Amino acid sequence: MTNREISIGEVGEFGFIRSIQEGCHFSKDRLIRGIGDDCAVIGPYGDRVMLVTTDLLVEGVHFMLDKIPPEQLGQKAAAVNLSDIAAMGGKALHLFSSLAIPPTMPVKILRAIYHGLKAMCSRHRVNILGGDTSASKEGLTISVSVIGEALKDEVIYRDGARPGDDIYVTGTLGDAMGGLKLIMEEVSGPETVTRRLINAHNLPEPHLEAGRVIARSHLASAMIDLSDGLLSDLRHICEASGVGAILFKENLPVSEDLRLLAAENAMDPFEWALSGGEDYRLLVTVPRENKGTFQAIFSDNASWKIYRIGRITKGEGLKLRHPDGSQEQIEAAGWDHFTMAH
Amino acid sequence: MTNREISIGEVGEFGFIRSIQEGCHFSKDRLIRGIGDDCAVIGPYGDRVMLVTTDLLVEGVHFMLDKIPPEQLGQKAAAVNLSDIAAMGGKALHLFSSLAIPPTMPVKILRAIYHGLKAMCSRHRVNILGGDTSASKEGLTISVSVIGEALKDEVIYRDGARPGDDIYVTGTLGDAMGGLKLIMEEVSGPETVTRRLINAHNLPEPHLEAGRVIARSHLASAMIDLSDGLLSDLRHICEASGVGAILFKENLPVSEDLRLLAAENAMDPFEWALSGGEDYRLLVTVPRENKGTFQAIFSDNASWKIYRIGRITKGEGLKLRHPDGSQEQIEAAGWDHFTMAH
Repeated sequence: MTNREISIGEVGEFGFIRSIQEGCHFSKDRLIRGIGDDCAVIGPYGDRVMLVTTDLLVEGVHFMLDKIPPEQLGQKAAAVNLSDIAAMGGKALHLFSSLAIPPTMPVKILRAIYHGLKAMCSRHRVNILGGDTSASKEGLTISVSVIGEALKDEVIYRDGARPGDDIYVTGTLGDAMGGLKLIMEEVSGPETVTRRLINAHNLPEPHLEAGRVIARSHLASAMIDLSDGLLSDLRHICEASGVGAILFKENLPVSEDLRLLAAENAMDPFEWALSGGEDYRLLVTVPRENKGTFQAIFSDNASWKIYRIGRITKGEGLKLRHPDGSQEQIEAAGWDHFTMAH
Repeated sequence: MTNREISIGEVGEFGFIRSIQEGCHFSKDRLIRGIGDDCAVIGPYGDRVMLVTTDLLVEGVHFMLDKIPPEQLGQKAAAVNLSDIAAMGGKALHLFSSLAIPPTMPVKILRAIYHGLKAMCSRHRVNILGGDTSASKEGLTISVSVIGEALKDEVIYRDGARPGDDIYVTGTLGDAMGGLKLIMEEVSGPETVTRRLINAHNLPEPHLEAGRVIARSHLASAMIDLSDGLLSDLRHICEASGVGAILFKENLPVSEDLRLLAAENAMDPFEWALSGGEDYRLLVTVPRENKGTFQAIFSDNASWKIYRIGRITKGEGLKLRHPDGSQEQIEAAGWDHFTMAH
């Protein structure tokens, strides 16, 4: 097969992205960090830097309009981008949203989407500064960009994790995956549990405040938000930092709701906690010597709960330590939107 | 008909945009200008402000892959966003590009699009700082955002035009429309003319250098780039500034190529100059007292040619003055992507 016949579906998302990332920098002006973290980092402007993140949400790929109420879709479109600002320890300032809209789409749905966008932005005091509106041939596409800022010396990157660092997460894991399985009707559960888990999937809350508390503390060595799933996102930190990691299975925070759902459907909630995407918690690495101070910050803060779930190790690869002390090498791969597989 | 049944196609793009622009500001932090100009203006950071623009290009709506070579599409996607930075008098710094891609799309086409994006960014020393890549159900969607900066006191807005100001344009008008008509095979012409006019449509060059020269001169009162067409974009300036305008037909710069094409097809090149979109020249208003100094800047600069095409007037509305001195009231309306009409 010659090069001209290969489709993006065959190469896959990651292969293609790697192939185009070469040779994209044409100036050092106001450039601190380009591709490869949750946000691009621009500046400095005095002691500040700007954080920029952009995301595309495509109907039928990232969302289905019959599976999520439009107002929640608007909230989520904002939340997933705000979460990228949180992952750098930044303050979110402004959101830009562009929509490609099928001409037959009821205005009512679009208004509800914007209502959701505004609700999320209002909650975090983020301005919506426009963007573009266009027709589409088929399906709704939502493009969202968010601009934030941070003090230059407080930005937390993915590449600072060092062997011995503890690994923390700022909330329970796998709830969004449980919710997705309920939405897709692959599992079923009691009504209240179902409602809470579906909300965990459809209405993630960006951990902006936690991110800023962590950044201001100067105690963390690396940070990322959990969008692809714990294993994938931890691997991003490990690859950027040139380290490995071990996770302690018994420490993984799994909600009572998720345990109950898993039990009723004879499934393993830890699978969902390890591989489920879209939890939008923060994954943080903290040098050993900062452990006490770091945990004290959060024990004083009733709004945020942190869980120590593992440790950064030398070398490559991810391991899972079982409660009996045995260790298992684990694989992680990101979700490929084109091949529809990990 | 009840509200719930009205589609976006019936309300139209502008009606919908107006309806959602209310209540989008939740903080005054780092906000100078939101919706309503070529770029949002963010900051200040010291004596600087950031300029942000974002655009969505949808296959079948903004471009057809059988009508524009993919490398030129990439160049144009960058150029139309860089032109928005030029329209504020800014320096373009960084570009973010997100693609929603049909899984069947050949990688070769995508590489060519990126090659074009990079060529345009390289020429203007703008970094490509990533963005998102996703599958789409149907058709290619390209979302581009560009971040630029400017000295706070050099930014030129749309709302500064005052009665008596001269109106200038930084290049010929209507060439892109001539090119589009050739591409759509609605007209035909000699080979060299055809090639140049199609290039004017497919390969617009953002007037970044001219924009910065104008901004640094502090001589202009308002500026916009010509994306929708002279009448539409002049109306944007007039509405923002609360003024009217008169255009002098004999002063409208129409290229020899366009005159020749129009003559061969028994059409009026001035129609294209007035209403044709996508020229991406800058439309500038300059107070009378700055006329000499302003014209001198450009007579010394071999790279850029300016044309004085009209004057800002009191009151509302646009007029066209014919060579015989008679005046005609003219209507202008933006292109609506949903109703597919002006």
